[in-house]
Amino acid sequence: MRRVAVIGAGYTKFGEHWNKSLRQLSTEAGALALEDAKLEGKDIQALYIGNMSSGHFIGQEHVAALAADQSGLTPIPATRVEAACASSALAFRQAVLSIMSGKHDIVIAAGAEKMTDITGASALSTLMGAGDQEWESSIGLTFAGLYALMAQRHMKDYGTTREQMAMVSVNNHKNGSLNPLAQHPFEITVEKVLNSSLIADPLRLLDCSPITDGAAAVVLVSEELAKRFENPIWVLGSGQASDTLALHNRNSMTEMLSTKVAAKIAYGEAKLKPENIDVVEVHDCFSINEIIAIEDLGFCEKGQGGKFVEDNKIARDGERPVNTTGGLKSIGHPVGATGIRQIIDIVKQLRGTYGSLQINGAKTGLALNIGGSGATAAVHILGREY
Amino acid sequence: MRRVAVIGAGYTKFGEHWNKSLRQLSTEAGALALEDAKLEGKDIQALYIGNMSSGHFIGQEHVAALAADQSGLTPIPATRVEAACASSALAFRQAVLSIMSGKHDIVIAAGAEKMTDITGASALSTLMGAGDQEWESSIGLTFAGLYALMAQRHMKDYGTTREQMAMVSVNNHKNGSLNPLAQHPFEITVEKVLNSSLIADPLRLLDCSPITDGAAAVVLVSEELAKRFENPIWVLGSGQASDTLALHNRNSMTEMLSTKVAAKIAYGEAKLKPENIDVVEVHDCFSINEIIAIEDLGFCEKGQGGKFVEDNKIARDGERPVNTTGGLKSIGHPVGATGIRQIIDIVKQLRGTYGSLQINGAKTGLALNIGGSGATAAVHILGREY
Repeated sequence: MRRVAVIGAGYTKFGEHWNKSLRQLSTEAGALALEDAKLEGKDIQALYIGNMSSGHFIGQEHVAALAADQSGLTPIPATRVEAACASSALAFRQAVLSIMSGKHDIVIAAGAEKMTDITGASALSTLMGAGDQEWESSIGLTFAGLYALMAQRHMKDYGTTREQMAMVSVNNHKNGSLNPLAQHPFEITVEKVLNSSLIADPLRLLDCSPITDGAAAVVLVSEELAKRFENPIWVLGSGQASDTLALHNRNSMTEMLSTKVAAKIAYGEAKLKPENIDVVEVHDCFSINEIIAIEDLGFCEKGQGGKFVEDNKIARDGERPVNTTGGLKSIGHPVGATGIRQIIDIVKQLRGTYGSLQINGAKTGLALNIGGSGATAAVHILGREY
Repeated sequence: MRRVAVIGAGYTKFGEHWNKSLRQLSTEAGALALEDAKLEGKDIQALYIGNMSSGHFIGQEHVAALAADQSGLTPIPATRVEAACASSALAFRQAVLSIMSGKHDIVIAAGAEKMTDITGASALSTLMGAGDQEWESSIGLTFAGLYALMAQRHMKDYGTTREQMAMVSVNNHKNGSLNPLAQHPFEITVEKVLNSSLIADPLRLLDCSPITDGAAAVVLVSEELAKRFENPIWVLGSGQASDTLALHNRNSMTEMLSTKVAAKIAYGEAKLKPENIDVVEVHDCFSINEIIAIEDLGFCEKGQGGKFVEDNKIARDGERPVNTTGGLKSIGHPVGATGIRQIIDIVKQLRGTYGSLQINGAKTGLALNIGGSGATAAVHILGREY
């Protein structure tokens, strides 16, 4: 199979962009990626963009053509991919497949979401589009509610503590305090998490990722072209899997089968094991999900995720650095952009030139992007070498 | 490059399905395609689904995972693709690319839309998500309005007549009267079109495709597997292109550059010319668009589309049979499903076993699916042989 490498990457400041629209954020991210790759728009042969709910958030569908239009990239093929909060990891994957297919050699993959043009309540209801409308949204469940159910069960089955979940947020904010593009670049304490407003028991405000505007983009090329670029980062494995949309239909509420299946595929393709991964990005939409992800990705045994966090193994200088640049919690979570933002942070770590964010010596990295409560999972493994 | 064939195909009855939801329609179409292919769910390795606006229409995003879930196909990768009314031709294309890439060998590609759960006015406003929200929707333009502008200009520049546009609808309804799955399977007359309610001058009600619920699905396989199936229909060419989202930004209002670029790619890959195409499906969302499409696809010179229709060359027994099973006008236009419905009708014609709908001797076919007012175009050319 034809190999694919990332040779350009960039994301916008994440936050509340009152003065920038989706089209502006997308174009800005695309320009950052092109500049980083030292390419021009005319070099790009196809565009993929992940976006979850622009129809609701800004009254605009058809955002791939819009992105091509606003970036001056027409008439290249422009395709939007949607899988809730996993939209842009899937856009990335389609870009990879399109190069593997031989149809294209240089492709841009982006993710973008503009969430603050509507009220917070409307945004929460829009986000429930990621769950099962007939069985979950219609009875008033929110995503905090869904993840709270998982957290309750994880605490009951494995003795995971409220404090351990808080430590996830503390770790991610500590890392995010180093990241100038983060929405909330400051440190917090366990006490602060435990005293923040209760959202859905046991989850509190500081267990929850925020509502964010932002965009992220990467440029991918075929192996033949990769040699022409400095420091290409290789896509070693790409796994994607689905599960039931509704949480109640699954056998377990404390693991995500989709993550396990996607991870198995990605590890297999990359010929790597969990212990070979140097830096990790997981989908901490809620703190409990980082604990579940650490377990499902095989970094510790099922049920030991809380202890893994408590033992500081996820820290930047720990055994397995996780969310080294802030995660969804501190950087923010523009739902359609997060998947590619995660991949960019892995790419930048693997290049070895990430300044104050650098984890020294990182040669392999893994990004896990989750849609909904786990109905979609995408795992990408990247490496400096193949 | 690895070749890809369609070996299963089916679409649901198109119409107002008051008693069926999106999940039911999608599953029904998937089952039809599997049954046609003589395969079971467990044989399918990946799912792609085109859907434009389920977020607005039914409060549900994440519909690819939902389709996999409801069809018992989890944990396979499930990916939604959106490009307004061209969503499912793009889903088809991604399925083709995923097989070409070597990642998958048997893939299902579907399209589905459930449009009648909201009011007609809400549906029209939802559909404007396909246009440019900042420049078109916000000032009150509708899609009938956009296509009316194109029609006015086509009439002015090329002398296209009101009657010629009506003849498009008459042809498509005549063909659709043979199609048991069509929403409006009855014949109409030019007089009836000309006397129907004015929607956006010069377009009248019977120039406009209806609001429809429906779903369509195909099964695609790699060339190695295609030999095991009866009557595989080959994907000979796949072209996709983008243009500005807003109509006013283009150099011409009487042609679609996206169609011309996509067609050039598809003809090139298929090593065929317009005169080699036996059956054609074009995107007659409004009658004028069929005339523009006929020209842009090269079946006649620019400006001669109206005459081409008037001379009955698009009839089932004409020089170039177009929309032989009813088109969007008579079959209906569930926006996310239309692209694959078109491909299915080509596949069935090329198999040579389409009963009363059969165009005898058809060996090659082309389907053109348009998103918005032409910001996306996808052209697929299929053949009995390669």
